[in-house]
Amino acid sequence: MAKEITLREENYSQWYLDIVKKAGLSDNSAVRGCMVIKPYGYAIWEKMQAQLDKMFKETGHVNAYFPLFVPKSLFEAEEKNAEGFAKECAIVTHYRLKNDPDNPGKLMVDPNAKLEEELIVRPTSEAIIWNTYRDWIQSYRDLPLLINQWANVVRWEMRTRPFLRTAEFLWQEGHTAHATKEEAIQEAKIIHEIYARFAEDFMAMPVIKGSKSENERFAGADDTFTIEALMQDGKALQAGTSHFLGQNFAKAFEVKYLTSENKEEYVWATSWGVSTRLIGGLIMTHSDDEGLVLPPKLAPIQVVIVPIPKPEPEIMLVADRINDELKAKGISVKIDSDEKNRPGFKFAEYEMKGIPVRVGIGKRDLENGVVEIARRDTKEKTQVSLDTVSQYIEKLLDDIQENLFQRALAYRTAATTNVDSMEQLLEVLDTKGGFCLAHWDGTSETEEKIKELTKATIRCIPDESILEEGKCILTGKPSKQRVIFARAY
Amino acid sequence: MAKEITLREENYSQWYLDIVKKAGLSDNSAVRGCMVIKPYGYAIWEKMQAQLDKMFKETGHVNAYFPLFVPKSLFEAEEKNAEGFAKECAIVTHYRLKNDPDNPGKLMVDPNAKLEEELIVRPTSEAIIWNTYRDWIQSYRDLPLLINQWANVVRWEMRTRPFLRTAEFLWQEGHTAHATKEEAIQEAKIIHEIYARFAEDFMAMPVIKGSKSENERFAGADDTFTIEALMQDGKALQAGTSHFLGQNFAKAFEVKYLTSENKEEYVWATSWGVSTRLIGGLIMTHSDDEGLVLPPKLAPIQVVIVPIPKPEPEIMLVADRINDELKAKGISVKIDSDEKNRPGFKFAEYEMKGIPVRVGIGKRDLENGVVEIARRDTKEKTQVSLDTVSQYIEKLLDDIQENLFQRALAYRTAATTNVDSMEQLLEVLDTKGGFCLAHWDGTSETEEKIKELTKATIRCIPDESILEEGKCILTGKPSKQRVIFARAY
Repeated sequence: MAKEITLREENYSQWYLDIVKKAGLSDNSAVRGCMVIKPYGYAIWEKMQAQLDKMFKETGHVNAYFPLFVPKSLFEAEEKNAEGFAKECAIVTHYRLKNDPDNPGKLMVDPNAKLEEELIVRPTSEAIIWNTYRDWIQSYRDLPLLINQWANVVRWEMRTRPFLRTAEFLWQEGHTAHATKEEAIQEAKIIHEIYARFAEDFMAMPVIKGSKSENERFAGADDTFTIEALMQDGKALQAGTSHFLGQNFAKAFEVKYLTSENKEEYVWATSWGVSTRLIGGLIMTHSDDEGLVLPPKLAPIQVVIVPIPKPEPEIMLVADRINDELKAKGISVKIDSDEKNRPGFKFAEYEMKGIPVRVGIGKRDLENGVVEIARRDTKEKTQVSLDTVSQYIEKLLDDIQENLFQRALAYRTAATTNVDSMEQLLEVLDTKGGFCLAHWDGTSETEEKIKELTKATIRCIPDESILEEGKCILTGKPSKQRVIFARAY
Repeated sequence: MAKEITLREENYSQWYLDIVKKAGLSDNSAVRGCMVIKPYGYAIWEKMQAQLDKMFKETGHVNAYFPLFVPKSLFEAEEKNAEGFAKECAIVTHYRLKNDPDNPGKLMVDPNAKLEEELIVRPTSEAIIWNTYRDWIQSYRDLPLLINQWANVVRWEMRTRPFLRTAEFLWQEGHTAHATKEEAIQEAKIIHEIYARFAEDFMAMPVIKGSKSENERFAGADDTFTIEALMQDGKALQAGTSHFLGQNFAKAFEVKYLTSENKEEYVWATSWGVSTRLIGGLIMTHSDDEGLVLPPKLAPIQVVIVPIPKPEPEIMLVADRINDELKAKGISVKIDSDEKNRPGFKFAEYEMKGIPVRVGIGKRDLENGVVEIARRDTKEKTQVSLDTVSQYIEKLLDDIQENLFQRALAYRTAATTNVDSMEQLLEVLDTKGGFCLAHWDGTSETEEKIKELTKATIRCIPDESILEEGKCILTGKPSKQRVIFARAY
């Protein structure tokens, strides 16, 4: 085989790192906690960006760009937000290097180039953006402001993991301003819905939509809506959050508007983001012991054509014809005309890279008027007539997309357990893991205590849950609905 | 009028700032030298990005992403490059804030969170990328590497100007690695050609293609190819550069490969970039005293439809029909159905924003089966029959694109002068400005001296120039071709 990776059941964590490396998604860098996103990984991000950007624009949002740096005085203006990020931010203190007199050829920070005010590399942009919105908003006619930005942010994480948690990551952050509380909540929910639709329809990753408990909310938010996915190892992944920020930032930055009745009011806000972390979620939802598995809608290459055993002229003629037919249907294809490696090596390589469909074209098959089509998700192979190959593949890509979603959903269903006691919670977490639905008395203290005892957090209070009288698994106090506990990434 | 701006002949510099502000392209920020790119300005950048990205991909390049930070030890590895950027870079020295004990509610840099090695916020990414390429390149089979990234960079400029020179800016930077010198030079020239084609065919901005003199080369390059445009005030703008880096970075970062003959060789490199500065060039090439003028191919909104005087039902019916017809042709349209402002106000507003074509629909016109079409570039108005309006507009957009290019080319031709003495150079620079073609003896000393005396630099040694014996305007030494002198942004 071309490359081997650790088996999931041996060491899930190492399996993940092996996939990231061997499928060519990312690489380590010389900067602590920062990764290089390699071309194949970045191509997946580009597919995600294109789809999300389309969904944002269809709902009236526009893109803009705000500075990378936040002056310290702005950073600290919204206290909860500042407190939430202060311990993990990169700080620019100087603006010049000079030659080091003691080390010829080396540079040192020029002590004469110290900034009067330090600049924080944005961990998120509410502060710099709301400081700008103050100038942009005078009256109700200036509202709503529906702005998104695609950007890099930095959070000085101590334990990093490619895509899932890195010091620098890429994301989009929406920042909207509204005249009323209702409208702002509505906006946060529209985005919450878009995130869920993107996760399920494009990533083929089922998610539970819900609200965060107070403990788990974004620093500075009055309410955080979240989509939570379940990874194959039974751990949860927070995949996208949309925050109702109330008037917290408007008050911190004095952003007021004149209503149509000429009254001055503070503006209402939302913010929302998804990041390159989604790629981590994509990997851990679908991939297997042979490598990456990608849903067709986000696969940079959807179909690979491999001549067997070599790219001989009559084979390449057919390959080109299939390629043309598929391209006309908007399907992305790669023809592997490399002569150095053998088909078996190539098959393993494309399995590692998660290309959804592989077409093998051999001479004997051609004599029979067929090609061999292999699907990555189930590894089934089928002989398909040359006359119908492009229609077959078009439908197969849809089938794979749907199958991946259904498979992940079936896994999640099997890995979701109603638990009614602390003992049961611990037992389920330690054996099968997954989502545990349990009653909770609604207090932060109880949540903290359960976290301490089990390392599980409340992933969300589901939007759609059956109201059910019950008793908190820790305190026995009354509860009206189950919430989701899980250990999480 | 809705908004007024300074006239070009009164104060060109203020005119530029007025356009940037009143057309809604960018805004100042709380961070010294950093701008906010507003939605309308960012939409132009998105159009530029989409086209450039397509051109890069068509020529075999892929995108990736490398870290924002460069550890100081890597930054200083290629000495010329380090020297070129050391005096203007933002430096991260700490990774945590803490509560300031002397100022309740305020934060301070935590002295215990000092980094062992300072991190430079990338002013360009050669260092971090070539440090990574060392791991990616072993043999000739790994070459060429044709990678681009879309990113933000920071250069601590003292005098900033929106789009033209800002401390943080957005750009793309290509970084390629090749087995031979010839192939690397070829790559740099392919990109040079793409930049020129983009400038002329999409920005409608004529450029002179050429090479930089040694003085003006990118720090660390063996050769720099540049496209130089001429702004309406007679100053030059460097619009895009493509560098042949020789083996300088390969040697600094020890990047070698095994040839097919199993010999170890250093790798050859190029890098190339264009930035949001192009938006400054776009503004200054076409705009006038009524505001921004945009070439149709880069205009976020190509056609605006204004009901006269109000959006009444029969008018909106026609507006919607025209909108549908234009959208079907891939033309972007805005229908202004706002009822608050009068048509005259709207006309001025859309002129300020540089929307190429305006369609006015009035009741009396409708009775006659016509609408009024105004083009932004010449401000001509025409009555056009309802039956042919969408075909008319489709062709008009092409005409405007072509007219803008021809107009700018005619201006440049008129503003290009052969000069044969220092006196003449100074006189031309002080009166009409523009490109001055003059003989130069080829030395850096002479170039420096001319710069000192005239504030003009050698913009480029043109790719296409007539070989002509002559004498250097400063030293009288022999010269074989004229080069372009100009004062520049």
